[in-house]
Amino acid sequence: MIVEIISVGTELLLGNIVNTNANYLAKECAGLGLSLYHQSVVGDNMERAVEVIKTAWERSDIVILTGGLGPTEDDMTKEACAKVLDRELIEDEHSKKRIVEFFERLGRTEITENNWKQAVVIKDSIVLDNPNGIAPGIIAEDDKKAMILLPGPPNELYPLFNEAVKPYLKRKTDKVIVSTMVKICGMGESKAETVIHDMIAAQTNPTVAPYAKTGEVHFRITAIADTEGEAEKLIKPTVNELKYRFGEMIFSTDEDESLADVVIKKLKLANKTLALAESCTGGLLASAVVDIAGVSEVFKEGYITYSNNAKIITLGLDEQKLQKYGAVSEEIAFDMAVLSAKLAKTECSLSITGIAGPNGATAEKPVGLVYIGCVCGKNVTVEKHNLSGNRQKIREQAVIKALDLLRRELSK
Amino acid sequence: MIVEIISVGTELLLGNIVNTNANYLAKECAGLGLSLYHQSVVGDNMERAVEVIKTAWERSDIVILTGGLGPTEDDMTKEACAKVLDRELIEDEHSKKRIVEFFERLGRTEITENNWKQAVVIKDSIVLDNPNGIAPGIIAEDDKKAMILLPGPPNELYPLFNEAVKPYLKRKTDKVIVSTMVKICGMGESKAETVIHDMIAAQTNPTVAPYAKTGEVHFRITAIADTEGEAEKLIKPTVNELKYRFGEMIFSTDEDESLADVVIKKLKLANKTLALAESCTGGLLASAVVDIAGVSEVFKEGYITYSNNAKIITLGLDEQKLQKYGAVSEEIAFDMAVLSAKLAKTECSLSITGIAGPNGATAEKPVGLVYIGCVCGKNVTVEKHNLSGNRQKIREQAVIKALDLLRRELSK
Repeated sequence: MIVEIISVGTELLLGNIVNTNANYLAKECAGLGLSLYHQSVVGDNMERAVEVIKTAWERSDIVILTGGLGPTEDDMTKEACAKVLDRELIEDEHSKKRIVEFFERLGRTEITENNWKQAVVIKDSIVLDNPNGIAPGIIAEDDKKAMILLPGPPNELYPLFNEAVKPYLKRKTDKVIVSTMVKICGMGESKAETVIHDMIAAQTNPTVAPYAKTGEVHFRITAIADTEGEAEKLIKPTVNELKYRFGEMIFSTDEDESLADVVIKKLKLANKTLALAESCTGGLLASAVVDIAGVSEVFKEGYITYSNNAKIITLGLDEQKLQKYGAVSEEIAFDMAVLSAKLAKTECSLSITGIAGPNGATAEKPVGLVYIGCVCGKNVTVEKHNLSGNRQKIREQAVIKALDLLRRELSK
Repeated sequence: MIVEIISVGTELLLGNIVNTNANYLAKECAGLGLSLYHQSVVGDNMERAVEVIKTAWERSDIVILTGGLGPTEDDMTKEACAKVLDRELIEDEHSKKRIVEFFERLGRTEITENNWKQAVVIKDSIVLDNPNGIAPGIIAEDDKKAMILLPGPPNELYPLFNEAVKPYLKRKTDKVIVSTMVKICGMGESKAETVIHDMIAAQTNPTVAPYAKTGEVHFRITAIADTEGEAEKLIKPTVNELKYRFGEMIFSTDEDESLADVVIKKLKLANKTLALAESCTGGLLASAVVDIAGVSEVFKEGYITYSNNAKIITLGLDEQKLQKYGAVSEEIAFDMAVLSAKLAKTECSLSITGIAGPNGATAEKPVGLVYIGCVCGKNVTVEKHNLSGNRQKIREQAVIKALDLLRRELSK
């Protein structure tokens, strides 16, 4: 089945935002075994939007549109689609009720007039409740084709696609597509690719596609078959081969599981608690941990000791030691980890101290030098890393390296 | 002049890479005052590429293509363009020489056969030397139109565009485009739009476009004129009107300045230091602050007191008070701010305590309830917010609300 993606929004044409939605949908469509031949972007202009949608509707089986479902005047995706389909727009009572409920939850009684526009849908379409916003998703079917309208904000689009559109698209294809993820940490993308070069070169069904994320590489293994069981049987040897080649570097084979998820699960299972002491990452590690709901069972406290003074007073670091070795050193990473676990009375802890740049580097201590300390029960480990990229990238990588260190320690 | 961007590459359609090239070119074209109405992506398929290029060539003055200039068989952008233009492809002697020189620089004497393909250009076109790669850029002109073929790798595309294509396009346009940003905080997109509804409805030159970001709204004001001075003169009254309507909500008129940047600058200017105490945001606020290079002058320490115990022991919160009011309360936000400033010996502090969900809510304290405390010199302020969205969104908004509170306090 041929699918096409249209992103609506002048902000894309002006270059104000990067089109990550199209990338997300492209990946999802590939995973569903749909053939994506065209992607396009059009601005908030009725005439041009109608033209683009018309072309897509003629040449593709499924047209997925994102954006332009907002309350403002320049949002006109629904109007343009209705024109192409030659259908009416009607007010959806259910969506109206959801708008009222949405604002009630926010404690607001006053609803601005333009918000009601978001309860308008294409006649005879499937309306998809949007759990994270006001604009519902819309699926307008015509013969064997489908036009799917989704909101632009990623935090609304992703769950809506995942929970409502994906099952819908799966029902439309007669083949079954099954895909599995194998996620690794501790090896760069180019290197990881050389490790499985022969597998990529020989692939037909299943296929193996590597995706690089900061500090991680994810492999998606996808098989197409008549039944789910058959597809899974096709996938299995490839997953086993990847497990054999990457071994302990694999932290998850679950699509929705992040490295932080894995670490928190392991902590819960081991009945261990966690403290954090951060310098250059300044809360980024703690934030990644707190991002996980229900983390309060294991995460006790974080110390963002950015200044040397904070390291001395809050953590109780030895001032002379700090002067002797410098804040970015194996010794200080070690002490930060040990002291934070002691202070917060936890069995585990992680510490990060490094030079995120662009300033603060010396000949011996370049930008990207990061030490990570880890307490896991009676074991204390310190790892040294030389990371590359800008300030933000270095800090992000340091967080992944820290979580991965604790993961490996907890697996021992 | 109407420009159009076509990105060629199956890797984009499979979602293997994000289309940052299109974003880069869109931004550059906007800056050059070119009207970009369409962007599209097509795979390495001759028939479909020809169709997409043909459509673009008919409706636009300038068509910029990236990708598909490589040495492999599936690279066919030149062939597809030549077909649409009905021109021959010829070997370019100058480009051949550059290929030899390129490999000599790398110390390789053996050049694989398919590399010579990269010296093939469209007949009667302008050939642009690529300083970072083998594939030259190509500008094929026809009447008043231009088809511009550029390599896909960003490290080749950006310098080639900047050094060769930009001057070429500048010569083609006689108008100058100037744009300014006005960034506000503290009002949702729908409401902000109603405030300037008349301005948007009446806009011609300059134009006003609102963009929503988490907790913020950015307005881009763009004018087109014969000279930069004239364009600036056109923009000014609109900027002033926005300043009048949004007043103190405006935190910046600088494209590259974030809310955290503004707060840190204000702290530096006032010679004040900062401490942070976070509960539900768990380091996200500290991380936003530490993201700014050179922040160590003003940021001293952050306390991530996620558990009640941490609040009592580390910050010294009164246990009875904590039991009486609960961790998510005006009283505790107040004390967290005051105690963290005292502990870290800073003039300013921010505290955040709230219910980020999905668990932890009660009838009186729903998901999204967040209290933010702020110490600024002798003033202590607490603000209550009811935020919406998922856990991540609530935490992100809380960070913006906190930074904005301190910004306003520092402006007093």
